[in-house]
Amino acid sequence: MRYSQLFGRSIRSVSQDVRSRGHEYLIRGGFIRESSAGRFYMLPLGMRVQEKVVSVIKEEMESLGCQQMLAPVLHPRELWEETRRTASVSFELMQVKDRNDRCFVLGGTAEEMMVAVVRGFTLSERDLPLCVYQFSTKFRDEMRARGGLLRAREFLMKDAYSFHSSRDDCERFYERMSGAYSRIFERLELHALRVAADNGYMGGDYCHEFIVEHPLGESRYLSAEDSSYCAHEDIASFIREEMNSDEAVAERYEAEALRGPSIEDGVRHYGQPAWRQIKSVVYVTDTDEKILVCIRGDLDISEAKLIRELQCSTLRLATAEEITAMGTHVGFVSPLGFQGRVRIIGDTSLRSVRNFTTGANAWRRDVLNVNYSRDFSADILADIGIAQEGHRAVATGAVLREKRGIEVGNIFSLGTWYSERMRDATFTSSDGAREKYHMACYGIGVGRTLATIAEVHHDQSGLLWPKSAAPFDIHLIQIGSDEASERSANELYSQLLAAGKRVLFDDRDVSAGIKFADADLLGVPERQIISKKLVSSGCSETQLYRASNSSVVKL
Amino acid sequence: MRYSQLFGRSIRSVSQDVRSRGHEYLIRGGFIRESSAGRFYMLPLGMRVQEKVVSVIKEEMESLGCQQMLAPVLHPRELWEETRRTASVSFELMQVKDRNDRCFVLGGTAEEMMVAVVRGFTLSERDLPLCVYQFSTKFRDEMRARGGLLRAREFLMKDAYSFHSSRDDCERFYERMSGAYSRIFERLELHALRVAADNGYMGGDYCHEFIVEHPLGESRYLSAEDSSYCAHEDIASFIREEMNSDEAVAERYEAEALRGPSIEDGVRHYGQPAWRQIKSVVYVTDTDEKILVCIRGDLDISEAKLIRELQCSTLRLATAEEITAMGTHVGFVSPLGFQGRVRIIGDTSLRSVRNFTTGANAWRRDVLNVNYSRDFSADILADIGIAQEGHRAVATGAVLREKRGIEVGNIFSLGTWYSERMRDATFTSSDGAREKYHMACYGIGVGRTLATIAEVHHDQSGLLWPKSAAPFDIHLIQIGSDEASERSANELYSQLLAAGKRVLFDDRDVSAGIKFADADLLGVPERQIISKKLVSSGCSETQLYRASNSSVVKL
Repeated sequence: MRYSQLFGRSIRSVSQDVRSRGHEYLIRGGFIRESSAGRFYMLPLGMRVQEKVVSVIKEEMESLGCQQMLAPVLHPRELWEETRRTASVSFELMQVKDRNDRCFVLGGTAEEMMVAVVRGFTLSERDLPLCVYQFSTKFRDEMRARGGLLRAREFLMKDAYSFHSSRDDCERFYERMSGAYSRIFERLELHALRVAADNGYMGGDYCHEFIVEHPLGESRYLSAEDSSYCAHEDIASFIREEMNSDEAVAERYEAEALRGPSIEDGVRHYGQPAWRQIKSVVYVTDTDEKILVCIRGDLDISEAKLIRELQCSTLRLATAEEITAMGTHVGFVSPLGFQGRVRIIGDTSLRSVRNFTTGANAWRRDVLNVNYSRDFSADILADIGIAQEGHRAVATGAVLREKRGIEVGNIFSLGTWYSERMRDATFTSSDGAREKYHMACYGIGVGRTLATIAEVHHDQSGLLWPKSAAPFDIHLIQIGSDEASERSANELYSQLLAAGKRVLFDDRDVSAGIKFADADLLGVPERQIISKKLVSSGCSETQLYRASNSSVVKL
Repeated sequence: MRYSQLFGRSIRSVSQDVRSRGHEYLIRGGFIRESSAGRFYMLPLGMRVQEKVVSVIKEEMESLGCQQMLAPVLHPRELWEETRRTASVSFELMQVKDRNDRCFVLGGTAEEMMVAVVRGFTLSERDLPLCVYQFSTKFRDEMRARGGLLRAREFLMKDAYSFHSSRDDCERFYERMSGAYSRIFERLELHALRVAADNGYMGGDYCHEFIVEHPLGESRYLSAEDSSYCAHEDIASFIREEMNSDEAVAERYEAEALRGPSIEDGVRHYGQPAWRQIKSVVYVTDTDEKILVCIRGDLDISEAKLIRELQCSTLRLATAEEITAMGTHVGFVSPLGFQGRVRIIGDTSLRSVRNFTTGANAWRRDVLNVNYSRDFSADILADIGIAQEGHRAVATGAVLREKRGIEVGNIFSLGTWYSERMRDATFTSSDGAREKYHMACYGIGVGRTLATIAEVHHDQSGLLWPKSAAPFDIHLIQIGSDEASERSANELYSQLLAAGKRVLFDDRDVSAGIKFADADLLGVPERQIISKKLVSSGCSETQLYRASNSSVVKL
């Protein structure tokens, strides 16, 4: 490709909205352009990088025996109603009606679509495992769309779906896919960590995110200092250390409490640390059940863990009116008055403190010296707290560190979540019975992966593509417009093309400075420079450009 | 690929809805499945064919220097409002709002999107010509969706857009692209005719369809018997032969006419052929102007030609009330009373008859011996008639034959249609002025092309893929389950794969009959058969299967 003919040449500056270096370089270099917020054009340069990323992913998928196919972008809404995911993911779903008034969902993930096509075939045990995948445009109606390709509203995604006759087989394949994911990100020179995470609206058993640590990332996870444990904040577990086990259990009593409603107000009022209080919060489930959730005062409730524990699809906080109607008072809610009246979910931290302080379900009344088991107990006592920096990992006790990263891929073990909700999601077992199959699914955001490479691989002058993702193999730069340079450059260009190299040939009639600056910006891994002047002046190439894989061709 | 592991194996029968052989085989063979009406899954076999078709198209695009890119599927509606195509194509457009209430169009064609990205760069004359292309999912909200992939509501399309500094340059490139299209269809073994057609809602100057003659096609075109002329019915021109030039021009008079309102009623009443009458029809344009359209009684009006002549975007027939309000009567409308009151558009056939009969703008009154020029004239006299079987081509006088075919591609010369309607659609000319660029666009429906190959290349047992589109190079069939056959088959399979062949290996434990029937259905161009029994029994392969490129491997 001659740079003079390339559509999407470099520009000098970008708008103030662009907040990250990688994204800035992608725009300035002419790889991408924004259409509407969160929707991007891939220009020819970006398209070339995308094709490289796609081919790496494709090779690894094929090596596992996955078969490429393609489902329609518009999913019949009825399918999403079979699993009721219209409710659980509705905030991100885009929907459209055709002129026959039929409703469609713009696909954001395709589990229902894949079950719908697979169930059209009468699968037998011999046909399993089966794994299909596709590259297709996905839609997420994000409220905000900042960060360029890292959080797009429309993007190319590789999504794979596997079907299994048993949980064991599913687990084995899940681990093989996990290995393929590691190889994919390694080949693209991304250090992606496998982080246990929450299935959320995907349903199913367990899942992992592949996260590249980066301050721009929206995934918050906890990593043990001894590397023994790594988990997304939504599921990270941690030790609830005994706070005052040396203290004697004291007698409970109620007293006036001239304090405000918050935990901080309690800390100020009693001059005691936050862990001394019980934090009691009322939630309302999607079936309108009120749930009282209690946790040690210094911890926060994880709604993801709570949803999992309650097996509901959404949760919201109760309003002040709803709380008053329960016969208690905001800021003074206590589990003591609700035993047997509403379900109480307690965090395991309730066992780690002696002589808690809690409200008395009345304005400015507290109960002191409250002890779990003796004075109250939860219907479910479970891990529902958010792990924080400095907490300790359950297995080794190592200190947990908070990290942020970009989720470039995810894998979900879905169990029979879909085959239980969708009709005929079965195979014929060896003894002739129809059994529900186990499923897993596996996603990689292609655009996000491309953007992550750009965020990780750049310096102060521009991008530094790894070979596996580079838009070209060689950036050929002709310096000087004398006939000899020009002839040599054109000859070399032809030779390189004939040798099967993908070459970007900067044949423009502009200064060497502009050419080198553009080469720095575009970040093609290898350069060849044709220059009479450069060579005869004895100027070293390292004075002029940064890339180590450069060579000056002598005339 | 082992057939035992392929997702999407053959089935014996399809539903009654499937009306064509090619489509039936695509479904039975496991190439595609319908999701909702007009929206299809590409199963792994279909995906492999699609990838072959894509790669042929891609090679030819690259050979012209076209650059691949990708625009978002959701187009900001504002762009379609710039060209007002929201009005002209609204019947096929799907639209969706995001949760910020912003309107998007699901792309059916991407002229506006491409102008929008190109105008972000300050193009100069040196940057032109420029041609970009993409493969992307397109949406058309067709009222009916029959015929499988031939008329889908969602489909993969290759669309290319070229930008030029002059009309001449645009024309040259258009012809080069036309050549590339011919090569593409030739390589895919489709005999595609280049047929002049109407631009319709695409706007612009002229266009051609690439049509494969086939009874399933929805494109009706006229082809001269001497091959000198070929045009879509919407634009096909033809000679208006003199019907009665030997007759003397007679005196005009008005008389009672006890006839019904139709041309046929007139034929019966006067015992004269239809050409003796003037057919007068009132249309209403999108700006609510009433237009009187007159044509010789034996011809029909082409609304496509009429729209082009009037330069409006839509037309409808006037209602009986509207006609009465004009002071005339349905069935007795005549141009004689409207001269100077409404615009009259006449077909050139009005000059081919002496002494016409026409209505007198009153119930059961006619005027006889009406002659064009002497008694009335049209504001525009033009070619607005539909060519029919038996008419004669203008240039050579050869008889025209009606044909039907499948439109697999189209190319449109758009002139400055888009650059006049969209802001900043300009380049800097060599003298520094900003000029509007000329454009052309070029489409190929990938799914439709695949389906057309299936409709053209099959026999009574199944598909017969050309090599350029075949899902596999070789269909390897193992007959018999003895150890020797199995070992030989597996060895041969490995050898063929190692030699870079794409092999479908039927390793199933089923009868030879089933294997041969499936091979006939799938239509892979070459077969290799491993069989101890076959060889030792001296049975000739031609007794068992049809493909000529077959061989039996001896054990």
